[in-house]
Amino acid sequence: MADLKDFRLECPLPLNDNERVQLAHGGGGRRMHELLENLLLPSFGNDMLLERHDGATLNIAGAKLAFTTDSYVVRPLFFPGGDIGTLAINGTVNDLAMCGARPLYLSSAFILEEGMPMETLRRVVESMRVSARAAKVQLVTGDTKVVDKGKGDEIFINTAGIGVVAHGLTISPRSVRSGDAILLSGDVGRHGIAIMATREGLSFESAIESDCAPLWEPVAALLAAGVEIHCLRDLTRGGLSSGLIEIAETAGLRMAIEESLVPVREEVMGACEILGLEPLYLANEGRFLAFVPQRDVERGLEILRRFDVSRGAACIGEVRVHPAGLVTMKSRLGTERILDMLSGEQLPRIC
Amino acid sequence: MADLKDFRLECPLPLNDNERVQLAHGGGGRRMHELLENLLLPSFGNDMLLERHDGATLNIAGAKLAFTTDSYVVRPLFFPGGDIGTLAINGTVNDLAMCGARPLYLSSAFILEEGMPMETLRRVVESMRVSARAAKVQLVTGDTKVVDKGKGDEIFINTAGIGVVAHGLTISPRSVRSGDAILLSGDVGRHGIAIMATREGLSFESAIESDCAPLWEPVAALLAAGVEIHCLRDLTRGGLSSGLIEIAETAGLRMAIEESLVPVREEVMGACEILGLEPLYLANEGRFLAFVPQRDVERGLEILRRFDVSRGAACIGEVRVHPAGLVTMKSRLGTERILDMLSGEQLPRIC
Repeated sequence: MADLKDFRLECPLPLNDNERVQLAHGGGGRRMHELLENLLLPSFGNDMLLERHDGATLNIAGAKLAFTTDSYVVRPLFFPGGDIGTLAINGTVNDLAMCGARPLYLSSAFILEEGMPMETLRRVVESMRVSARAAKVQLVTGDTKVVDKGKGDEIFINTAGIGVVAHGLTISPRSVRSGDAILLSGDVGRHGIAIMATREGLSFESAIESDCAPLWEPVAALLAAGVEIHCLRDLTRGGLSSGLIEIAETAGLRMAIEESLVPVREEVMGACEILGLEPLYLANEGRFLAFVPQRDVERGLEILRRFDVSRGAACIGEVRVHPAGLVTMKSRLGTERILDMLSGEQLPRIC
Repeated sequence: MADLKDFRLECPLPLNDNERVQLAHGGGGRRMHELLENLLLPSFGNDMLLERHDGATLNIAGAKLAFTTDSYVVRPLFFPGGDIGTLAINGTVNDLAMCGARPLYLSSAFILEEGMPMETLRRVVESMRVSARAAKVQLVTGDTKVVDKGKGDEIFINTAGIGVVAHGLTISPRSVRSGDAILLSGDVGRHGIAIMATREGLSFESAIESDCAPLWEPVAALLAAGVEIHCLRDLTRGGLSSGLIEIAETAGLRMAIEESLVPVREEVMGACEILGLEPLYLANEGRFLAFVPQRDVERGLEILRRFDVSRGAACIGEVRVHPAGLVTMKSRLGTERILDMLSGEQLPRIC
C-alpha cells in the first residue's frame, strides 16, 4: 500500500484575500477544510477547537460538559422525513451525543426574511417543539432577527447545545487506535437523496425519507454497557467519506473499509445512479460511526440493533497504521481505492 | 397616577397565519414581543424561557451556569467604534454578564453569502479574535454555512455563550423590588447613531462612535463588593425604554425615571434632532441597567465609575408599585409621560 501515500493531497494553499466565498466553503468538503485550517483555526485556535470534534468538551466549576453549535440553512425547508426544524434540533442533539454527552439544553436563534409567511414559521416552530420533546432536550434561550426581503431565504436557524458528560472516556479522533473496528449505525445516503429529490421534483416508486433522528439513545446504551468507545462521528455534510477522512487526518491513521459492508438501500442506490451521485458522499442526519476495540464489536452491534435508529448497524472496516491519514475502500470487485474529500460541493445547503 | 393605567396597552393580538414576517418582528419592540408571547414562548415554554431574561441560568452536574445566544445581522458590517465581529463577541459576553455570570466560552457560527470577499471575512474574524481576547473568552466550537448569492447579506454571525455563576443572588426581572434604585452605566444612544450615520452617509463634526464594549468587569466588581444586585439588563435593540418596559412588565412594577438624569451626549442629542430619533429608544452595545436597593446606590455608582466602560454611571430613577407594568418619565419641564415600546422599528438591523 506504500504507493498510496503519493496520492495524499498537498497541504491546502493559503486563502487569497482576492478570493470570494464559494458555496463549496460550506459544503463539508476540501474547500471548507481550507477555510477552517487557514482562517478560523489560526484565529480562534485553542486546544478544544484543535480537537476538530463535533463539539467542545469543557470542565466548568467541576462539571464536565459538551458544547456545540450549528446553523441550518437547508432548502427546501420541508422534505420527506423532516424539515429545517427537526434538523435544527436533531443536528445539535447529535453533535452533543457524538461527544458522549447527554443532550440537555438548546438555544435557538432565528434569522427570518421579511415577508416570509407566519404560517411557515409556525410549522417550523411546531417541528422544533415536537423534536425537542422526543430528544428530551429543553429550549431555554433564544433570539429572533429579521432581515430585509431579498437578504435572507425565509428562515435560517441556529441552535447551540449543552450536554453533560458522565463517563470517563476520551471520545475524540485522537483516541482512535490502530486495530479499532469501524461501526456504522445504519444505511447511508437517505437525507441527501430526500433533499435532492424534493429540490429537483423527482419522485421515486417509494418515497425516500430523510433519516433525520436523534442519536443519543444508542450512544447512551453503548456507554452504559461499558463499550470502550474511542470516537464517535455523525455523518452529515460530506457523508460517510468525509467523516472517515476527517478522522483519518486528525488521528494520523488509515481507515480501511469495504464497500460491500456499507449498507445502502436499493432505492438510494437507484436514485444515485439516476442523479450521478455517490452514496458515500451523501449527507445523513441520523447516522454515526463508532470506533471501538475489536473485542467490543459483537456486543456493540447487538446493542445498536436494539434501537430503531440504529437497527441496521454494521461493522464496515477497521483502522490501520499505514498510509497515515488516508481512507481506503475495497470495492466489490476486490480493488482498493482512496476516498478523498470532494473539493467542490455535491449538494449545497443540505442542512 | 391612577389614571395612567388606562394607557396600558391591550394584550397583543394573536398572530394571524396569513400574516407575514415584518422587519419590526426583529426590532426589539412591540411586534417582536407579540411573536415571542404568541408563538415562541407557548411552544418552547419552560421556567427558564419564561424568566424573559438575557440568558438562561442552569444547574448542571453541580455547576451553576448561564447560557445565551444571539445572531448578528447588522448593516453596515463596519461602523465607527466596531463591526459585526466586535458585536458578535461583546453582545453575547454582555448577555452572560447580565445573568451575573463570568463569560467563559463562546461558539461562533457563520452564515456566509456566496461571492462575499474573503477579505471581509478575514477582517471580521480578526475583530472577533481581538474582542474575544479583550473579554477573556475562548471560542471553542463553531460552524460555517454558505448560502447562494442573493439569499444572504455577506455575513451573519451567531454566537452562543456559557458563563459561570459564582454568587448566590437571583438576578432576574422578578427580583426587582419597589424602592430599588435604577442605575444606568453611562450615556445612551451612541451605537444607534453610529450605525444610522454610517448608513445614511452623514458626518458630524466629531464622529460618534458605537459604545460597543464588554461589560463583565464592572458587573464583577459590583458582585465582588457585595452590592445586592436584583436585576441587570443591557440596553440593545429598543434602547433604554424597551429595557425598562420589559422589566416593568415582567416584574409587575412601575419604573419611574427622570429625563434630566439620563446621560445623553450633546452630539447624540444633536444627531437625534436632525434625524428625528428618540435617544431613549436608540440601541446601545455597552450600556446596562442595574437594579439595587437604595442603600447600595452610592457604593454602586462609585464602583461603576472606576471602569472606563461605566465611567458615566448615574442613578436615573426608582422602582414603584403603581401603576404596575409601566415606565414613566418626568420631563425636564416637570410633566410626566408614559414610555411605550415602539410597535414598529426605529432602526432595523442595528445588531
